[in-house]
Amino acid sequence: MTQDTAADTAKPNRRRRSGGRAGNMRGRGPAIVQPSWHLPEYLDNPIEPLTGEGVEKVHDAAMRILEEIGIQFLHDDAIAILRREGCTIMADGVTVRMGRDFVMEKITTCPSRFTITPRNPDKAIEIGGNRAVFGQVGSPPNYSNLDEGRRTGTMKAFTDLIKFTHYFDCIHFQSGYPVEPIDVHPSIRHLDSIRTKMVLSDKVSHAYSLGVERIEDAIEMVRIAGGLTDEAFDATPRMFTNINSTSPLKHDWPMLDGAMRMAARNQPTVVSPFTLAGAMAPVTLAGAIAQQTAEGLAAIVLLQCVRPGSPAVYGSFTSNVDMKTGAPAFGTPEYVRATQMSGQMARFYGLPLRASNACAANFPDAQAAWESGNSLWACTTGGVNMIYHSAGWLEGGLCASYEKFMIDCEMLQQMQHYLKPVGVTDADCAVAAIEDVGAGGHFFGTPHTQDRYETAFYSPFLSDWSNFENWEDNGSQRTEERANRLWKRILEEFEPAPIDAAIVDELDAFVAKRKEEGGAPTDF
Amino acid sequence: MTQDTAADTAKPNRRRRSGGRAGNMRGRGPAIVQPSWHLPEYLDNPIEPLTGEGVEKVHDAAMRILEEIGIQFLHDDAIAILRREGCTIMADGVTVRMGRDFVMEKITTCPSRFTITPRNPDKAIEIGGNRAVFGQVGSPPNYSNLDEGRRTGTMKAFTDLIKFTHYFDCIHFQSGYPVEPIDVHPSIRHLDSIRTKMVLSDKVSHAYSLGVERIEDAIEMVRIAGGLTDEAFDATPRMFTNINSTSPLKHDWPMLDGAMRMAARNQPTVVSPFTLAGAMAPVTLAGAIAQQTAEGLAAIVLLQCVRPGSPAVYGSFTSNVDMKTGAPAFGTPEYVRATQMSGQMARFYGLPLRASNACAANFPDAQAAWESGNSLWACTTGGVNMIYHSAGWLEGGLCASYEKFMIDCEMLQQMQHYLKPVGVTDADCAVAAIEDVGAGGHFFGTPHTQDRYETAFYSPFLSDWSNFENWEDNGSQRTEERANRLWKRILEEFEPAPIDAAIVDELDAFVAKRKEEGGAPTDF
Repeated sequence: MTQDTAADTAKPNRRRRSGGRAGNMRGRGPAIVQPSWHLPEYLDNPIEPLTGEGVEKVHDAAMRILEEIGIQFLHDDAIAILRREGCTIMADGVTVRMGRDFVMEKITTCPSRFTITPRNPDKAIEIGGNRAVFGQVGSPPNYSNLDEGRRTGTMKAFTDLIKFTHYFDCIHFQSGYPVEPIDVHPSIRHLDSIRTKMVLSDKVSHAYSLGVERIEDAIEMVRIAGGLTDEAFDATPRMFTNINSTSPLKHDWPMLDGAMRMAARNQPTVVSPFTLAGAMAPVTLAGAIAQQTAEGLAAIVLLQCVRPGSPAVYGSFTSNVDMKTGAPAFGTPEYVRATQMSGQMARFYGLPLRASNACAANFPDAQAAWESGNSLWACTTGGVNMIYHSAGWLEGGLCASYEKFMIDCEMLQQMQHYLKPVGVTDADCAVAAIEDVGAGGHFFGTPHTQDRYETAFYSPFLSDWSNFENWEDNGSQRTEERANRLWKRILEEFEPAPIDAAIVDELDAFVAKRKEEGGAPTDF
Repeated sequence: MTQDTAADTAKPNRRRRSGGRAGNMRGRGPAIVQPSWHLPEYLDNPIEPLTGEGVEKVHDAAMRILEEIGIQFLHDDAIAILRREGCTIMADGVTVRMGRDFVMEKITTCPSRFTITPRNPDKAIEIGGNRAVFGQVGSPPNYSNLDEGRRTGTMKAFTDLIKFTHYFDCIHFQSGYPVEPIDVHPSIRHLDSIRTKMVLSDKVSHAYSLGVERIEDAIEMVRIAGGLTDEAFDATPRMFTNINSTSPLKHDWPMLDGAMRMAARNQPTVVSPFTLAGAMAPVTLAGAIAQQTAEGLAAIVLLQCVRPGSPAVYGSFTSNVDMKTGAPAFGTPEYVRATQMSGQMARFYGLPLRASNACAANFPDAQAAWESGNSLWACTTGGVNMIYHSAGWLEGGLCASYEKFMIDCEMLQQMQHYLKPVGVTDADCAVAAIEDVGAGGHFFGTPHTQDRYETAFYSPFLSDWSNFENWEDNGSQRTEERANRLWKRILEEFEPAPIDAAIVDELDAFVAKRKEEGGAPTDF
């Protein structure tokens, strides 16, 4: 149950807690009854569209890109490190070629699975192996809900969406900002945003690699929230960042800088090339995955040079574009195959894998559900370890939808239930129960059913399984309308994760100091 | 393209063809551009939740049900046949016990794959092996669309839905009535319904096993439509029927009678026990699948006794109920696992497998899409050969929705495209193209892209991939609203499959004669 930790009495900052409305809810019970927090595990074999030979061919193409074409690193320290390691720096001073033996040797120090421990150790997540963990939508500039329509992101919406992220146990980590809080100046936005994430939730958090100050401030705030010394912080992963290459073939300064700072402190970086087939990558999936692999491994190699053994994740964001408009599409057949192929490459290199629950739809309707459904199936059949953008994503990532968040959590819960093993004991095979019931009977009241019915099946919170007449009598509510009612109840009953008042004070003091210093410099 | 055969000039019965509106469509082009007719093939390994030992345990449970409990056959001829074959008939005269050696020996004559050839041999479908074929929703009493709401079935709605069935190349066969035409008297309903199916479409058709007259009339009409002699009809499968056991453990007279008549003429029967876990079957999936297997194999054994080598299909309809209300649920985690487990059992017995694209939703919204999406993924990851109820199903099968039909066909096309192999030639791996584009470039205009962009990606007909602003300018159309416009265009441009006027005359004469004779006797 999500409220397990809410019984703690130390809740110094229940900001926005709608105490006055709690009275209205008496007798209604919680908004939903959730399955307990658990980290799903893949027990099925992944789906593998490539043969072993196919994997070798994509690998060979990736290695040729690294050896013969090279990747640009727009960061002097990165170039200096790679030069020192024996890579060839081309005449332009930024293009690096690296041999396949060097690449394959360097990635052996990158762990194939690791744990990230947030301020609440009970919410630690394992990344890699056959684990699957899910995070909410990150980085959209807009949000929407049925009441307000679609609007530019605000700190209020950010806070609401972080509450959902904390509330649902099927969400295991906090990705990037669930919506960009445009109403907070960029120089101090990261301070307010990370404070909100740290104080409302005790789940693992992402931090952006967007210049020195933002990542260093985030590291410091995660350290403070965890009540950790610098040494304790560095001892094991506590947070993570995600970087994207500027495809094709380029890693920019801000992301490299943040990732190297994270690696230096033993913190994980997810490297997710933005290889949209037909636009920033070849129109062929094998070509796009080869390029994704080359761009991803190039950065992972650099991070292993910075600190051998620091964790990194092979990120897959390969999808296709609408060839009529160039717009990115998600949840497509190509996206599914690209994700499954990425799974094969990640396992080939012994690296954890990240992909996304993405869609292109503009509204939380059938298209949004089939596209997200395809993306989710892509992730689970591909053996994806970190599923980004799991809840709330619409419009190719340009909008965080409150209603879609609810819809996605329903789909996530179902998928996570599906991933559990099926029992085949003698009692499960139920020959005696079948004999007892006999021809023409039914199983409703039998002991075999009574002993199991409460937990035998997954119980949805958003699906309406009533018959048409009852559904109509209840107002013919569409799924998005039910989702709309649900998120309001969740906000009403939300309880933040417990946190020591002293830690909140320390966070606030840090934020105040950094604001006084001007936060992260901007030119406006 | 679906219109390949429409160029034929012999179209004596373009009933309802909206010739007057054709002018309106000039310059608009076809409603959709479809992928060509093809029979999808599974190239990936299926997902198998059971270990080999687990399969043996479910098999053993099924065999114990057949050996120790027995199955009721409410048909004297069936009992006589099984008695003659050495089965034990219990004192009640209807319960049959059969030994596992007998069962396993009998099913060896049942083909693991076969072909059904309709009146147009180009539309022949293969059932079994690694083939997947899809049919539309069958048997709902109601239909709905956004214009009319939800109504009791009519012959007009039946006809519209058969037109959709014929129109979409992702639909390979005609299942049962797409909606029950309640406005036609039951005594002659099968005559009008099958005539409509035969004349509008040249795809394989189902016929109901509901008493002697209905199945015999259907056989005769399929024979006439194909221009076949009795001998030619019997030489190979031309149609099929589906029977459901009355779970638990009972096969009723009308279905057994129809199936035995079909087997006698070498025509296939799909045996689909209605084993809803928690209601008519154990609450445990292993128990429900064991019961499904026992009920299914019992009938298949009987049909092999009637005519060794006649084709049959192992049908899976196992899902779970809402334990609060007893209502059946579909597209659930349990449904996915049950379907995958059924795939393992079907392959264990060397039998083709049928399952469904089902959902419980009351409206073609997000819930409908995630439930159907889960069902479709269940089918394809389970290796299902015949996917029933692929398009149009709502409300647990109580309603055929016009808009859901369009949504499902979009999802089917995407799934069928996904099932195609991924290329990994050197040209696919695209190292040269990546070198040509270089860092900071893009792939839009490159020869590698230009040579492939028209066919590189699946192109949806119902997804709206425009950005939010354009989507809003176009009226913020929900998926179901776009689907509503689409089915109207499809009905406008519909062309029936070409058919010889003489054959239509012969069908009509048969229908007239049988109506004069009273059709199938009813007591009202």
